[in-house]
Amino acid sequence: MAVGDVSMPHMHVVQGVKIGSAEAYVRYPNRRDLVIFEFAQGTNVAGVFTQNAFCAAPVHVSKLHLEQANPRYLVINTGNANAGTGKLGMENAQLTCLKLAELAEVEQYEVLPFSTGVIGEQLPIDRLVQGLPPALDTLDENSWVDAATGIMTTDTTPKGASEQFELDGVTYSMTGISKGAGMIRPNMATMLSFVATDVPIARNLVQQMLKISADQSFNRITVDGDTSTNDSCIFAATGLAGGIEISSVEDPRYAMVLDVLSRVMKRLAQLIIRDGEGATKFITVTVEGGNDTQECCDIAYSIAHSPLVKTAIFASDPNWGRILAAIGYAGVKDLDVEKIQVWLDDVQICKDGGAAADYTEEAGARVMSQTEMMIRVDLGRGQAKDTVYTCDLSYDYVKINADYRS
Amino acid sequence: MAVGDVSMPHMHVVQGVKIGSAEAYVRYPNRRDLVIFEFAQGTNVAGVFTQNAFCAAPVHVSKLHLEQANPRYLVINTGNANAGTGKLGMENAQLTCLKLAELAEVEQYEVLPFSTGVIGEQLPIDRLVQGLPPALDTLDENSWVDAATGIMTTDTTPKGASEQFELDGVTYSMTGISKGAGMIRPNMATMLSFVATDVPIARNLVQQMLKISADQSFNRITVDGDTSTNDSCIFAATGLAGGIEISSVEDPRYAMVLDVLSRVMKRLAQLIIRDGEGATKFITVTVEGGNDTQECCDIAYSIAHSPLVKTAIFASDPNWGRILAAIGYAGVKDLDVEKIQVWLDDVQICKDGGAAADYTEEAGARVMSQTEMMIRVDLGRGQAKDTVYTCDLSYDYVKINADYRS
Repeated sequence: MAVGDVSMPHMHVVQGVKIGSAEAYVRYPNRRDLVIFEFAQGTNVAGVFTQNAFCAAPVHVSKLHLEQANPRYLVINTGNANAGTGKLGMENAQLTCLKLAELAEVEQYEVLPFSTGVIGEQLPIDRLVQGLPPALDTLDENSWVDAATGIMTTDTTPKGASEQFELDGVTYSMTGISKGAGMIRPNMATMLSFVATDVPIARNLVQQMLKISADQSFNRITVDGDTSTNDSCIFAATGLAGGIEISSVEDPRYAMVLDVLSRVMKRLAQLIIRDGEGATKFITVTVEGGNDTQECCDIAYSIAHSPLVKTAIFASDPNWGRILAAIGYAGVKDLDVEKIQVWLDDVQICKDGGAAADYTEEAGARVMSQTEMMIRVDLGRGQAKDTVYTCDLSYDYVKINADYRS
Repeated sequence: MAVGDVSMPHMHVVQGVKIGSAEAYVRYPNRRDLVIFEFAQGTNVAGVFTQNAFCAAPVHVSKLHLEQANPRYLVINTGNANAGTGKLGMENAQLTCLKLAELAEVEQYEVLPFSTGVIGEQLPIDRLVQGLPPALDTLDENSWVDAATGIMTTDTTPKGASEQFELDGVTYSMTGISKGAGMIRPNMATMLSFVATDVPIARNLVQQMLKISADQSFNRITVDGDTSTNDSCIFAATGLAGGIEISSVEDPRYAMVLDVLSRVMKRLAQLIIRDGEGATKFITVTVEGGNDTQECCDIAYSIAHSPLVKTAIFASDPNWGRILAAIGYAGVKDLDVEKIQVWLDDVQICKDGGAAADYTEEAGARVMSQTEMMIRVDLGRGQAKDTVYTCDLSYDYVKINADYRS
């Protein structure tokens, strides 16, 4: 069961974005496992993708196509990741684009493919291609919830975020969906996210805004440190709500849109952690007082990845020795442990590298028993700060991942 | 329950090494929780210690004392790690050495202290000091098994390895003990190991041999990636069995003794994995065909740390996509996935970066159901090779670590 509020908000229409879906029987029958996004002509699109060296065929093709032009269509299937599938996998990803391009009368490189599901099996390409016409037939501006549901694999809930905002008297929307039950089943839990707005934004800024927001959201969540072969995140700006195009970071609207995008993407990323299979707690790990962002991140991830910290939190055990140990082995050079402070929410557990004098197990246990908590570390040597989001490690994590594919 | 054969071998006496123990009531009553090693005058001693920035007080003191002289005594307590204990912790570690030095009539810096147990609590220094005389009273050459038992914390079995061998007509012994139920409870599972031989070896070579052997043993095991604040490994060469001192790596006996030491330490390290709490399988991860040792290690650890790979092995599920994904996110530059081969024992699961054509789930499942298995990866780009040892991730891992301290 997901942690905290994961309810679907009202999903505002984004002018220039239509969504269709169909039952293609990629892996299971009676599932709308094929989703198509259509972007209006002139939409500027950017993408960020997995760093995994074994990235899947659709990731290769999407990157290639994005370099050539703004895409007009995204085609997404669940049930099969088309990863570890060699040349035939590449051909099938290309063929999917080609067939959709023919039907929609665009160029093949104007279609980006996405796949999520089991690794190492070939796509049922005939059924997938047969699903394209019915998916195109259902294209509609109001289908964001259908899309969020269609791209689910092991997710227990569809994931969406949406805001409406005004810039210079024009009302705009920003709406997005995500999937991925916490990267804890990479065979079925690729992280995918698609966000769109009808603000007019120059293409280079679309890419820049996506990169900045991804670094604060999808690149700051972890369930178990495993990175999928298919992770992808797309941001599209149609510009169809009107107004003058944002073409410079000096434009005050740039910062305002970036703010909305970061909030929407952070929500979409956090929803993945909240729905992490086996998760019973949502944990924010903030490291401040560092020399640079990198060392703050290294220590935050070291804590967030530690199975010992995560099992202690599952058990509501304020075992602060495990947190100190995780800070200590993060590999950060010249760490002066005597300057380190650690808090669980408002309770200081570690002062100047040792146990805080007024710390009590009761106070620690109180925070640890909450379903949401923050671990905050101050390195006491600089101004840098960063934050990572994670969940606890429960019996169910092992159960789910050990039983999977049975 | 430990995996495979973990029985205690015959522990050969090492001439010049005596061991005593006492009930000091550090944490629990009626436990011989205080162990003392006495080395004969002239023994050459070397140590390797945890890289954790939060290293414990006894680690600081041991390093300091080792720089000053060869130690004559080691004093080891279980039940309390004396870590995260600030200045008082340092004073207590020093006081332990001082009191033992007074009783044994040596210098304070000729004593090295070791502690393992809960983090963040002060040593019961009075009871510990009171335990020193009775521990000294029991010093005996035949107490290796008592020592192995005395230093246990959550270990389910005492861990020992011992060999007798001949060099130039002289018979020597190499005997060692270790503890640490797999670093899965760092509060109680510091890894400690003490190895001694009666071969005469120059001090600089003792250090060199220990470093080389540790890199093939204690530095190549992992249960969950967590590194304790107290990990320490000591190697002592008394020289008391006679013969000429080994003072050069050109001496053919150097390689022979190094071979014995590496075998003994590898066994002591593997015993820790076999006794990893919750472990049901012993896994050897070998990466070959790399450009250098570092990248082989990075990939081997990426696989060995992956909770997804470890849960799949627990479930006997040949989920090779998870292994490929772990190779892919190890951060090794310019990996050509099309050159990568992966085997589970003799079964090739991945050929040239994709599924091996003749691979069957049945063959994979057969290997995965064994209690001992090897994951072998060939990167196909160089001559380097390295091996890491680990265990699976079971329900019991979470149970033990979540329930701990309750």
